[in-house]
Amino acid sequence: MAESMKGLKRSHRCTEVSSENIGETVTLMGWVQKRRNLGSLIFVDLRDRSGLIQLYFEEETIGEEGFKKAGSLRAEFVIAVTGTVEKRSGAVNENLATGDIEVKVESIRILSESETPPFPIDADITVKDELRLKYRFLDLRRPNIQKNLMMRSKVATLTRQFLANEGFLEIETPMLTRSTPEGARDYLVPSRVHPGSFYALPQSPQLFKQLLMCSGYDRYFQLARCFRDEDLRADRQPEFTQVDMELSFVDVDDVIDVNERLLAYLFKLCLNVEVTLPIQRMTWQDAMDYYGSDKPDLRFDMKIQDVSKLVKDCGFGVFSGAIKDGGMVRGLCAKGLGDVSSKKMKHIEKTAKDYGAKGLAYIQLKSDGTVKCPFSKFMSEEELQSLIQAMGGETGDLLVFAADKFKVVCDVLGALRLKFAEELNLLDKSDYRFVWITEFPLLEWSEEENRYTAMHHPFTMPMEEDLDMIDTEPGKVRAKAYDIVLNGTEIGGGSVRIHQNDIQEKMFECLGISKEQAQEKFGFLLEAFKYGVPPHAGLAYGLDRLVMLMTKEDSIRDVIAFPKVKDASCLLTDAPNTVDDKQLEELCLEIEIPEKE
Amino acid sequence: MAESMKGLKRSHRCTEVSSENIGETVTLMGWVQKRRNLGSLIFVDLRDRSGLIQLYFEEETIGEEGFKKAGSLRAEFVIAVTGTVEKRSGAVNENLATGDIEVKVESIRILSESETPPFPIDADITVKDELRLKYRFLDLRRPNIQKNLMMRSKVATLTRQFLANEGFLEIETPMLTRSTPEGARDYLVPSRVHPGSFYALPQSPQLFKQLLMCSGYDRYFQLARCFRDEDLRADRQPEFTQVDMELSFVDVDDVIDVNERLLAYLFKLCLNVEVTLPIQRMTWQDAMDYYGSDKPDLRFDMKIQDVSKLVKDCGFGVFSGAIKDGGMVRGLCAKGLGDVSSKKMKHIEKTAKDYGAKGLAYIQLKSDGTVKCPFSKFMSEEELQSLIQAMGGETGDLLVFAADKFKVVCDVLGALRLKFAEELNLLDKSDYRFVWITEFPLLEWSEEENRYTAMHHPFTMPMEEDLDMIDTEPGKVRAKAYDIVLNGTEIGGGSVRIHQNDIQEKMFECLGISKEQAQEKFGFLLEAFKYGVPPHAGLAYGLDRLVMLMTKEDSIRDVIAFPKVKDASCLLTDAPNTVDDKQLEELCLEIEIPEKE
Repeated sequence: MAESMKGLKRSHRCTEVSSENIGETVTLMGWVQKRRNLGSLIFVDLRDRSGLIQLYFEEETIGEEGFKKAGSLRAEFVIAVTGTVEKRSGAVNENLATGDIEVKVESIRILSESETPPFPIDADITVKDELRLKYRFLDLRRPNIQKNLMMRSKVATLTRQFLANEGFLEIETPMLTRSTPEGARDYLVPSRVHPGSFYALPQSPQLFKQLLMCSGYDRYFQLARCFRDEDLRADRQPEFTQVDMELSFVDVDDVIDVNERLLAYLFKLCLNVEVTLPIQRMTWQDAMDYYGSDKPDLRFDMKIQDVSKLVKDCGFGVFSGAIKDGGMVRGLCAKGLGDVSSKKMKHIEKTAKDYGAKGLAYIQLKSDGTVKCPFSKFMSEEELQSLIQAMGGETGDLLVFAADKFKVVCDVLGALRLKFAEELNLLDKSDYRFVWITEFPLLEWSEEENRYTAMHHPFTMPMEEDLDMIDTEPGKVRAKAYDIVLNGTEIGGGSVRIHQNDIQEKMFECLGISKEQAQEKFGFLLEAFKYGVPPHAGLAYGLDRLVMLMTKEDSIRDVIAFPKVKDASCLLTDAPNTVDDKQLEELCLEIEIPEKE
Repeated sequence: MAESMKGLKRSHRCTEVSSENIGETVTLMGWVQKRRNLGSLIFVDLRDRSGLIQLYFEEETIGEEGFKKAGSLRAEFVIAVTGTVEKRSGAVNENLATGDIEVKVESIRILSESETPPFPIDADITVKDELRLKYRFLDLRRPNIQKNLMMRSKVATLTRQFLANEGFLEIETPMLTRSTPEGARDYLVPSRVHPGSFYALPQSPQLFKQLLMCSGYDRYFQLARCFRDEDLRADRQPEFTQVDMELSFVDVDDVIDVNERLLAYLFKLCLNVEVTLPIQRMTWQDAMDYYGSDKPDLRFDMKIQDVSKLVKDCGFGVFSGAIKDGGMVRGLCAKGLGDVSSKKMKHIEKTAKDYGAKGLAYIQLKSDGTVKCPFSKFMSEEELQSLIQAMGGETGDLLVFAADKFKVVCDVLGALRLKFAEELNLLDKSDYRFVWITEFPLLEWSEEENRYTAMHHPFTMPMEEDLDMIDTEPGKVRAKAYDIVLNGTEIGGGSVRIHQNDIQEKMFECLGISKEQAQEKFGFLLEAFKYGVPPHAGLAYGLDRLVMLMTKEDSIRDVIAFPKVKDASCLLTDAPNTVDDKQLEELCLEIEIPEKE
């Protein structure tokens, strides 16, 4: 039987009561976490989003009926109690904010009963993902997930406050719109009024925010929902949230300045972490050379070292051959991994191969003084020693080498660097290391399409210094693009945009986009650019990822209230689902599922 | 030729410069509003989102090339200038914030040229809607629209600030979801991974916010995008924004309390308007009886008056007959409209008929002392005089009457009341009159479906006092529902929700929804309700409408950055549009447009 709360008013959330309230009458409402009967007393832990508080019932105070009610309580019943705050008579519970007090209950109402939940509401238990997501409404009660969503709310609130104070306007852009040229697959929405036509859900508000700059809004931001119909990888969702911004009359430094102050503000107020400003900047070239990645994890050092010069004429054909073929030889020195087992070494080799290496040359400098080096037979002792020395190898270290083209070398060593760091336990989630990556290449050669594609997007401004190479060596032109990287994860990125017609035309030319195609795809933006466009630049954060790192979670699903699983379905609501024939008829659509062969 | 702003940094927005800066060097960037050549001087009004400032150029200061550049400026060119702030030498322009100063330009760069725009960027000109929306990026430059969107941004920011301070958490709910039971048509999104299945875009986050209450989040809010695929009326958009909230462990008064403080906060900080609290409350029954509408405009009085008793036996069959048929006779006294022309009177009659009246009985008490009353012949002079007296009619007034069933009488007199107010110029947009409408009927009889439907939605809690009528007289049961009305527009509404299984089952029964149907439609919510659900209640505002009223606009299109037109298309981007066959193939869809007969 559900009782009404008529006439009652909650006085506090559970942990808003403290020893300062001792002697006061309070009215609390929440969920039963646990009931224990101890002789003539019944103890109940009451839970709300703020935490737990201990209640106790004795028949003398609450009467027979109330005591019977208390005895009937089970986990997840929703109750309202009125009682007196007392100093806890038993031992103080140091784990609870309210561990030094308890409430002697004088009256109780059961607002809602509960069946036995399929899993207990507890941060510390492991529940299968499927069950968690099917019963997401229960999973969301777990204190760790509640903490995450409260953090997310705080990050959103503070972000908006900060940006509003910096003169940004929050402006909403359409969800029912036209395909954007981000390259991923759009989610489509059929139109009933225009049969055969479709809206697209936005992959980002990119074109609209540039339009808003054309329209003179000067500084725009939005926490924008974005959609990509891609096959989901671990850390992707079909819909995700971007902290999206755009600024007029600025250059790279202005964007970086406001954003690093934003990050420092968020980390200070949400985590009490001081971010030292300015945040380090690193060119894309340096990031690739030293960390093998455009999102280097700087919580540990272990830089990639180039030994090409040293080994270019050595006896080991894998090394010298790679260099002759226009490649390079680079290596990593993993301090303290010299004694890895053969089995683990095989594992490491496999990782290298997964990232494109043909094999893995390594030197184990074991702590017993012996050296294991499969390729030592191809080198003189002197060559080997100078290689070890060049790498800074000491007893107990593991040296690994990749000999290949630039991209493969970076991929392999970048991946091994992270693997070693994990192995060596160097990845402390409480250690927040930011870095700006700048001077990205403007273009990227696509083997698949046999043409250059835009590394960021086709509106990214080339660096003035490199403009004269755009015809001769387009692959060498750097862009006014920047990413902000935190602990090896890209949390945001952006660029200065092209606002000059001639450069934009040149850019389309480089990308093999004809005037007609450009008109078809971005016609309305190009049209807007005819009527006076300010220099502008922007940036967007992946809010889900940022909050994931701030809450030290491993999956963005743990910071999204109602996430989808890998096949883009929602286990809670069973979306997507079939619809009525009438609905399809109105949309002039027929389903044609091809038979499997 | 577009020049770069390299090396330049904007020092102020245009109207951030004031007479306090006289003598200082400033760097400003913006759009050319206007250029005038005055002998050896060139004057330019520079515009940014903050407003206008006057620049002047003289060749002596800026040199030949710079002066030539200044002479080449046309409207909407984007320029950067550096110069000295001076007291204005000409007459002070009282209409400009910067009307007492001007900037003597020392250097200028043309950052972007502009073609002649299709209409001038000016608040005061009238441009055809179609042209405005096709060139929305130019329309958005107009100071009035900029003011609107800045107001909208401010309302959003302050709303979030206020709610965060009140302990609300901002939680994002999915856009790709399952059909919600709001009754309107859903926008569907075909799934590629699950061919033949569809997501629906949310009509509101109703079910999710109730789930969040079940999950213990206690207070939730979101500025949520909502979607309805309905045929658009004047004031509707296929996507719109709700300020959506839900609270646990509360009753009607708690929701009203926090929301009227929110409104007072917004109106004070955005418009410097004091909203006197508490806001007046009116039952639905009173609103209908006195104003003929559940969203009464209280900027003027002109209450509906019931004269049924007086005329029930009078000689005028239209009156006495209506009452005999179970109807009523009610009237309005429009002060000062007694002299309307016959033509206008015909117009008034037509309005009455449009709202369902069979005809309109009226009495014109002309200012020359004569009385025009087409039905006077059916009444004795005494009856007529006592009718006039009962209505408070005086020389110069117009009395109109509706004799029909309750609904028609309300509709007709409600509509005429607004028409008269317009006629009498009683609708001052700066006068903000709020009213809470409470105690709505729980159910509404649908002639079309021959059953009761939920007036708000099927989760709305009946009033405890009326629970015992739910089986016997369901139509008389009042709900714990409330709307907040401003100047005759419903800007928000909500209700206490049912959290008891037995009442929910009874509600479904009243609505003719079987257990299976309920399970199919809202299964996951009913499932959640099994595991301990707190009493909860919520409210949602239509942000677009609220901001429309705050900016004194007549259309929500003027407070939405990129609105759609009546056929739900976007004239700027041409959405919706056709898509590639490949995309449809991936979705296993075929377009089948039936041939017109």
